[in-house]
Amino acid sequence: MSEKLLGLLARDRFAALVGIELVEVGPGHAQTRLALTDQHLNGVDIVQGGALFTLADLAFAAASNSRGNIAVAINANIAFFHPARGKVITAEAQEVSRSNRLATYNVDIFDEDKTIIARFTGTVYRKRDRIED
Amino acid sequence: MSEKLLGLLARDRFAALVGIELVEVGPGHAQTRLALTDQHLNGVDIVQGGALFTLADLAFAAASNSRGNIAVAINANIAFFHPARGKVITAEAQEVSRSNRLATYNVDIFDEDKTIIARFTGTVYRKRDRIED
Amino acid sequence: MSEKLLGLLARDRFAALVGIELVEVGPGHAQTRLALTDQHLNGVDIVQGGALFTLADLAFAAASNSRGNIAVAINANIAFFHPARGKVITAEAQEVSRSNRLATYNVDIFDEDKTIIARFTGTVYRKRDRIED
Amino acid sequence: MSEKLLGLLARDRFAALVGIELVEVGPGHAQTRLALTDQHLNGVDIVQGGALFTLADLAFAAASNSRGNIAVAINANIAFFHPARGKVITAEAQEVSRSNRLATYNVDIFDEDKTIIARFTGTVYRKRDRIED
Repeated sequence: MSEKLLGLLARDRFAALVGIELVEVGPGHAQTRLALTDQHLNGVDIVQGGALFTLADLAFAAASNSRGNIAVAINANIAFFHPARGKVITAEAQEVSRSNRLATYNVDIFDEDKTIIARFTGTVYRKRDRIED
Repeated sequence: MSEKLLGLLARDRFAALVGIELVEVGPGHAQTRLALTDQHLNGVDIVQGGALFTLADLAFAAASNSRGNIAVAINANIAFFHPARGKVITAEAQEVSRSNRLATYNVDIFDEDKTIIARFTGTVYRKRDRIED
Repeated sequence: MSEKLLGLLARDRFAALVGIELVEVGPGHAQTRLALTDQHLNGVDIVQGGALFTLADLAFAAASNSRGNIAVAINANIAFFHPARGKVITAEAQEVSRSNRLATYNVDIFDEDKTIIARFTGTVYRKRDRIED
Repeated sequence: MSEKLLGLLARDRFAALVGIELVEVGPGHAQTRLALTDQHLNGVDIVQGGALFTLADLAFAAASNSRGNIAVAINANIAFFHPARGKVITAEAQEVSRSNRLATYNVDIFDEDKTIIARFTGTVYRKRDRIED
């Protein structure tokens, strides 16, 4: 992947605050990872929905920007299945369809047991601006 | 609202990490607020989708748990309209429909200009467990 | 509304097959109506989800095309709350946000008792092609 | 699959009106098919979103009811990618996750070229009532 794309993703200060790492990114796909701590929990001691969403969102941003055009999220849907077990959760983004101006990505979130705990589907608008120079 | 509910919401450590405040909660509705800083930005210098989602999610949790039963999120959909302008964003959750086991909430997110910048729709499963004792 | 828009909506042969009528359309909003018969029911004798979706979809198409640009649906989310009671259901579409290339509409579906039975949220891509000539 | 389930699906009068056939159903999955005619088109001569939704919805109903409990749709999200090419479209439903009271299904819609033209994600509430006797 281009230096520019990796720089853009590394500059995501909200993902950094949450503690999310980008594990891998390639054309139309990406993987992210979060080591869980107490600061990711909500009031009933399960991982907060916003932490899961943000984990998926960074994978989505990486995969959708991997095609060279600046990609801006316009919609995301997330279904929550099970509370996370274990200490690490991961998200895997995969392109479902892409046209000139729009593209859609599936992002599955897994807990340490490899059980799918949530599914995220997101669509981006692809700007004319290019990431690579 | 019951002390128990307010305690449960105050214990949301992820919302606290992000810097989100609960402004108001009543039967079927709630409002949250986030003072924006650099740590909420993504790689292209706009507020990260996960920060917006988390702001909406706390309002959704407050409104859905305000009915007395423990409410667990099963689905959320978010549409992003505009980048936020100004230094503070707010989210307002309102109940759309509620039955015995399920309920759906609309959460609108506004920037400092009162422009709607995102809309979140979330559904919860209402457990038999009660929050009040 | 322009003759061109009304002609385009009247040419929706799928809405005609289902029996949906366009009640009203204005800038950014529209209303549709369906008189229920046995042919709208599913295997457990409630109105099929596809019939509700189609009712909302025509209102969405009318409202989103009312702004002059050809609007193509890119995403829709529907939450189902209650089975319909009575013989007539209606859908009311309202613009939530609109920018140059994208716009989002809320469509509420009501039964004859005016109970909200479903909520639809849809986003369109606005083409450069104009409907009016 | 049980005679009862097949009977329930065959009684879907809305799917019959639209012309949708159930091709296959097994535990957690199903396939449906629609031979396109002019009556499935909207005002700009592409397949109406409601026709695509209904095709997916029957596959979703078959797959979700295949587990024995009566399954009621509570939410569906559909992303539209491309207009359909050719004369026949198909939908393939697959279970993503299932717990005691809830389950989620992915339904992909393909045109005659096997291009994915839409993706549907739906969640059901699983009632205690059983389909088999």
